[in-house]
Amino acid sequence: MVPLALIENLSEQTPSKILFLVLDGLGGMPHPEVGKSELEGARIPNLDRFARLSICGVTDPIAPGITPGSGPSHLALFGYDPIRFDIGRGVLSALGIDFPIGPNDVCFRANFATVDADGNITDRRAGRLATEINRELCALLRHIHLPEVEIFVETESGHRALVVFRGEGLSDYVTDTDPQHTGVPPSSAAPTQEEAVPMAQIVNTFLAEAAMVLQGQEPANALLLRGAASLPDIPTMPQVYKLSPAAIATYPMYRGLAKLVGMEVLDTGDSIWDEFETLQQNWEEYDFFYFHVKATDTAGEDGDFNRKVQVLEEIDSLIPALLRLQPDVFVITGDHSSPSALSGHSWHPVPFALYSNTCISDDISEFTERALVRGSLGRFPAQDAMQLAMGHAQKLAKYGA
Amino acid sequence: MVPLALIENLSEQTPSKILFLVLDGLGGMPHPEVGKSELEGARIPNLDRFARLSICGVTDPIAPGITPGSGPSHLALFGYDPIRFDIGRGVLSALGIDFPIGPNDVCFRANFATVDADGNITDRRAGRLATEINRELCALLRHIHLPEVEIFVETESGHRALVVFRGEGLSDYVTDTDPQHTGVPPSSAAPTQEEAVPMAQIVNTFLAEAAMVLQGQEPANALLLRGAASLPDIPTMPQVYKLSPAAIATYPMYRGLAKLVGMEVLDTGDSIWDEFETLQQNWEEYDFFYFHVKATDTAGEDGDFNRKVQVLEEIDSLIPALLRLQPDVFVITGDHSSPSALSGHSWHPVPFALYSNTCISDDISEFTERALVRGSLGRFPAQDAMQLAMGHAQKLAKYGA
Repeated sequence: MVPLALIENLSEQTPSKILFLVLDGLGGMPHPEVGKSELEGARIPNLDRFARLSICGVTDPIAPGITPGSGPSHLALFGYDPIRFDIGRGVLSALGIDFPIGPNDVCFRANFATVDADGNITDRRAGRLATEINRELCALLRHIHLPEVEIFVETESGHRALVVFRGEGLSDYVTDTDPQHTGVPPSSAAPTQEEAVPMAQIVNTFLAEAAMVLQGQEPANALLLRGAASLPDIPTMPQVYKLSPAAIATYPMYRGLAKLVGMEVLDTGDSIWDEFETLQQNWEEYDFFYFHVKATDTAGEDGDFNRKVQVLEEIDSLIPALLRLQPDVFVITGDHSSPSALSGHSWHPVPFALYSNTCISDDISEFTERALVRGSLGRFPAQDAMQLAMGHAQKLAKYGA
Repeated sequence: MVPLALIENLSEQTPSKILFLVLDGLGGMPHPEVGKSELEGARIPNLDRFARLSICGVTDPIAPGITPGSGPSHLALFGYDPIRFDIGRGVLSALGIDFPIGPNDVCFRANFATVDADGNITDRRAGRLATEINRELCALLRHIHLPEVEIFVETESGHRALVVFRGEGLSDYVTDTDPQHTGVPPSSAAPTQEEAVPMAQIVNTFLAEAAMVLQGQEPANALLLRGAASLPDIPTMPQVYKLSPAAIATYPMYRGLAKLVGMEVLDTGDSIWDEFETLQQNWEEYDFFYFHVKATDTAGEDGDFNRKVQVLEEIDSLIPALLRLQPDVFVITGDHSSPSALSGHSWHPVPFALYSNTCISDDISEFTERALVRGSLGRFPAQDAMQLAMGHAQKLAKYGA
């Protein structure tokens, strides 16, 4: 991979515009009951036509065989090495509820859990607690105060919450207190680097007080922390690419990720047409747009083949309107695959097509996994996508003389 | 990528011969007025036949989306990491006029420029000075003498010149004095590493004297330096590949690059038939030939679709003669693309075909960008080309037992 520093040296601000339409969980595999993937089952003439005009391929978000989470898969799509720039679980939890993470924060994903009279965990999810009770318990936990550190306890949903410690010199080099199985007591937080010794003490003191607060609150009489993480030190897209980038996404986590890499996050509504409206209204103001559609992934994760097909057909109807905006480079891809056959994210490579008037189009006539892989891009790392888009937008100066 | 040290361990001297026909700026994109690329527009039956017998693909000289200069793109083709082995502008300028760079030299690209009465730059190219005046001014500047350093001032053409400082312990870690825009005075050279403090002083003293020499010589009354560079520390092709390599190229920069990587540079004439004559005469003496054709790139850079087509057709007529020499491995490719539609180098992947009697040929029937990419090599890094050629020439021993 090319170092980001080199891209930063080569990138130039120009009037050309790049649009990334990211269909979450786009790709898949044939569903055993249907014998087709969702893309193969859908009637998507506009996407087919788009493929015909584009350079086509499929991407590996992380590497062949690796199933990505949404954090690393999006980072790769924005040109960042998803292994080097590791966004911890705690930060993803915080982004997911729009929590404004600061530079002195260490975030943890928290689970309410059940412990028995001996202090051993009997349920790591506290009977999949009602969100309402979660809220009440978080309010109680907010009464815990420790010297020299500010503590935030926020409900996500069900048994899931976010705990953030804010203060000078905190460290995220501490282990999880969630032992990941039952029949044992919660672990203590331990430092994994010398500098994190005080942090581990802070976490353990907080958890001791939390245990007292939660006494008698069965099934939620314990709190487990994992995924300690601070904001990653990541160069922003305006820095690296000299872009003025905007994000249009309905889910907080994607909005948060976009903010993390320096995008302006635009207010939008819930439907893809609301998102389109936002795009159209802001078209003149930015030169890079990340347009995220969540419904493809949700249908895939729910194992709902037919709904994923329907969502794809709805997206198909959006393509002509997007083309009318005349982006100089228009990429349609996903962040990762979510085949309904597997009801979750998968390692399958992700459909990719890039349209630009600087392309030698591949003449691929269908927007499907099987057809796109025969395109000129073949199977390639998602991390190359941004660079390729920048090249076709003529935003990269010549390397060397 | 495989480290060069491993290739060096595996490579063996054998009688087999490798021929690289490098058509500068070979690849392209469809010209908007023609709807075809130059290769698609040309009548090239011999190249088409060559593709049919070969393994085919397209290369990324540096990485997807990156437009290469000729220096890094050639290094990649010879198997060197073009990002790690960075050849500075100054060295390329020196190679371009056949200046014999030594190990104690620091080379700069120099521009004659115009400054106003306040010392601010009004024209970074001195009205694109006549080469004749450039020669006269270089002769004047050669009168500058500094203690313990030898200074060479050589005309390139127009406003462009080369300045070389020769001496013990000089360093190329100094900044440009060309501020890259007008309305400001020339910058001073500054060291970017401690060791370069004396070098920056030498450069600034030279420029102060040059300013006096050029006083009253409007429009060329100032000199701007950039791209300080010494010879890179690069293992040669005889070292790495155990080859006895020869270069046939008409342009000084390519001859210089070839010398840099340890090739013998053969005297030749101006036409591709002169170059062929040189190849034929020296066929028995070497086991690797780099045969460079410049005219494809020149036509592309000039934005001249028809001339590029003509050049391709002329090259096509050379192919049977080259095949009659019976190279064991015969590669036809470019260093980078130069589509006439863009009048310059581009990031588009570069056509590649390798013929050898050890190939499983791909049965691709046309030598065009679109056809070749469907070959078994697909889209791959140019840096792999040499290794592939060495393998097919049976010059690489088994790795491991």
